[in-house]
Amino acid sequence: MELLQQTINKIGELDQAAMEKARKRVDSLIKPPKSLGRLEDLAVQLSGITGELYPSIDKKVVIVMAGDHGVYEEGVTNNPQIVTYEQTLHISNGLTGVCALANVTGAIGVAVDVGVKRDFPDDSKVIKRKIKYGTDNMAKGPAMSREEAIRSIEVGIEIANQELAKGANLLGTGEMGIGNTTPTTAIISVLGNVEPIEITGRGAGLGAGGKKHKANVIKKAIELNQPNREDGIDVLAKVGGLEIGGMAGVMLGAAAARVPVVVDGYISTAAALIAASIEPKVKNYLITSHATAEPGGIKASELLGIQPMIFLDLCLGEGSGAALAFSVVEGAVRMMKDMATFRDVGMEL
Amino acid sequence: MELLQQTINKIGELDQAAMEKARKRVDSLIKPPKSLGRLEDLAVQLSGITGELYPSIDKKVVIVMAGDHGVYEEGVTNNPQIVTYEQTLHISNGLTGVCALANVTGAIGVAVDVGVKRDFPDDSKVIKRKIKYGTDNMAKGPAMSREEAIRSIEVGIEIANQELAKGANLLGTGEMGIGNTTPTTAIISVLGNVEPIEITGRGAGLGAGGKKHKANVIKKAIELNQPNREDGIDVLAKVGGLEIGGMAGVMLGAAAARVPVVVDGYISTAAALIAASIEPKVKNYLITSHATAEPGGIKASELLGIQPMIFLDLCLGEGSGAALAFSVVEGAVRMMKDMATFRDVGMEL
Repeated sequence: MELLQQTINKIGELDQAAMEKARKRVDSLIKPPKSLGRLEDLAVQLSGITGELYPSIDKKVVIVMAGDHGVYEEGVTNNPQIVTYEQTLHISNGLTGVCALANVTGAIGVAVDVGVKRDFPDDSKVIKRKIKYGTDNMAKGPAMSREEAIRSIEVGIEIANQELAKGANLLGTGEMGIGNTTPTTAIISVLGNVEPIEITGRGAGLGAGGKKHKANVIKKAIELNQPNREDGIDVLAKVGGLEIGGMAGVMLGAAAARVPVVVDGYISTAAALIAASIEPKVKNYLITSHATAEPGGIKASELLGIQPMIFLDLCLGEGSGAALAFSVVEGAVRMMKDMATFRDVGMEL
Repeated sequence: MELLQQTINKIGELDQAAMEKARKRVDSLIKPPKSLGRLEDLAVQLSGITGELYPSIDKKVVIVMAGDHGVYEEGVTNNPQIVTYEQTLHISNGLTGVCALANVTGAIGVAVDVGVKRDFPDDSKVIKRKIKYGTDNMAKGPAMSREEAIRSIEVGIEIANQELAKGANLLGTGEMGIGNTTPTTAIISVLGNVEPIEITGRGAGLGAGGKKHKANVIKKAIELNQPNREDGIDVLAKVGGLEIGGMAGVMLGAAAARVPVVVDGYISTAAALIAASIEPKVKNYLITSHATAEPGGIKASELLGIQPMIFLDLCLGEGSGAALAFSVVEGAVRMMKDMATFRDVGMEL
């Protein structure tokens, strides 16, 4: 709890002076006013976060949190649970979707075991921070204890700090966890005060009972555990997941260090809602990425006050959309650095 | 006309065998089926275009066509016409928005004078292919002759061929031409059979008469010149622009050489409609980019059967959205090359 509290205490407001300077530069660039749209807002936000007019984003890391889910036994998905383990290993070896997309901007992906059911070999590159062997089945009781939920967030903070200490200056969040659109939908249902059936989607593959069964499991878990929507940690503990806590921690850690963090699609957005419920100022440090195909994604973006930038019907997870969005962030930085101003070229505004 | 006809004759169908092979590989990658969404379709399209399973896109060029517009004198925009000249010069010197965004993927931008009102200095890097000093005022007669329209397309083909000969393997289209949302809207009105007022937007800045005046000028130009909607060259000549013809030529040239070409926003989309009206098979070679803020953009995308990928409210032009989309194309290529297959990792499908 100490690390979490320290981290929260460090999260400040955006640097208004830097943002003003950035807005002034944006408006002085040789283009019609506002014609680079949201890229301009992104550049100003980056300056507010970093305090720099020309922020460096040359070391980009997608942190992929992995965990299993007790609610898997309710048959909410048709994917074998072992895939969490296998795919996490492949991520650590640079072989998956997020790794390929990270290569576009020279970013790297790191995989963290925060709650996978099976242990990774000692010599694997997976960062071993397991809290427990998957969550408990939320349809039968809380997914984890409050202490475990806090610990999962703190693992995220620790990993973020570790990557930042190695020089990372742009983070992205990703996850691997078979069944995790179920807790994600539960979190958004609770925090958004909406019936599960209204926002339940197919995830990476529905179980035999289909969407209705999945929504019923979520509804049951919420009714049974009564998560307190005013308390993000309680929601995370009762109907969340260890990797979701880990991602919330990465966001809080990045914000405390004044480093921008790109939020991937559906599951990352739920983690962002948990982080924002713990400390609303974290929202200033979040950068949106792609639009998830999951129906709950729209609700989650709304709650978070963000609007996706990339529409490619991705639903892979892993942080793949965040990795793609790194290019857009680079675009905003390039705009600031590489474009001339009206004064530079001797033109009148 | 000979070059245009030769080019049209060379445009073939997509390579179905290569696409089948590509789809097979996409489906064998370690991810849930279809989970990389439209990135998967893009990879398959790239294989259909190039015939390669792993196409190279290491030399990316945005070709920026520049031209002025006689219809400027009707007061359709509040931007000084000299900006076409000035900004084209700045593009050639790497100082503008498209140049900055091209830097994200190591792409380059080249500027081509196909119809700017003023001559460029001999020592400037602008490629000098002026057909005439701006179009004629389409509100008083055709914007150009049929011969000039064909010539503008052929300039585009020539420049595309020139860049391809230098090794370019991914092209993008861009433009600079103060007032050119007016002919663009005229083209889309004609080809889409829709009233100008329904799709007229503010462009880079409306003239004193506002949107209604701009739409009226377009309506008048169409009624006066009676462009034949079955004949793209006629539409281009009567209510188009020299840089729009140039971009249509770049698309036709790229298609003939089986090289993918990324279509920027509003004005590029009108050029794509002209190109597709001349040779419908060109559509196979086009890659979409960002969603323009102009209302006519939705209509144009619909007519073209494409769906934008990037939503950032850009309205700069210059090919800036195409440059940004180069990263997404690179993502599709990286997916094919860098991801492992289920077989690679010894997993069963």
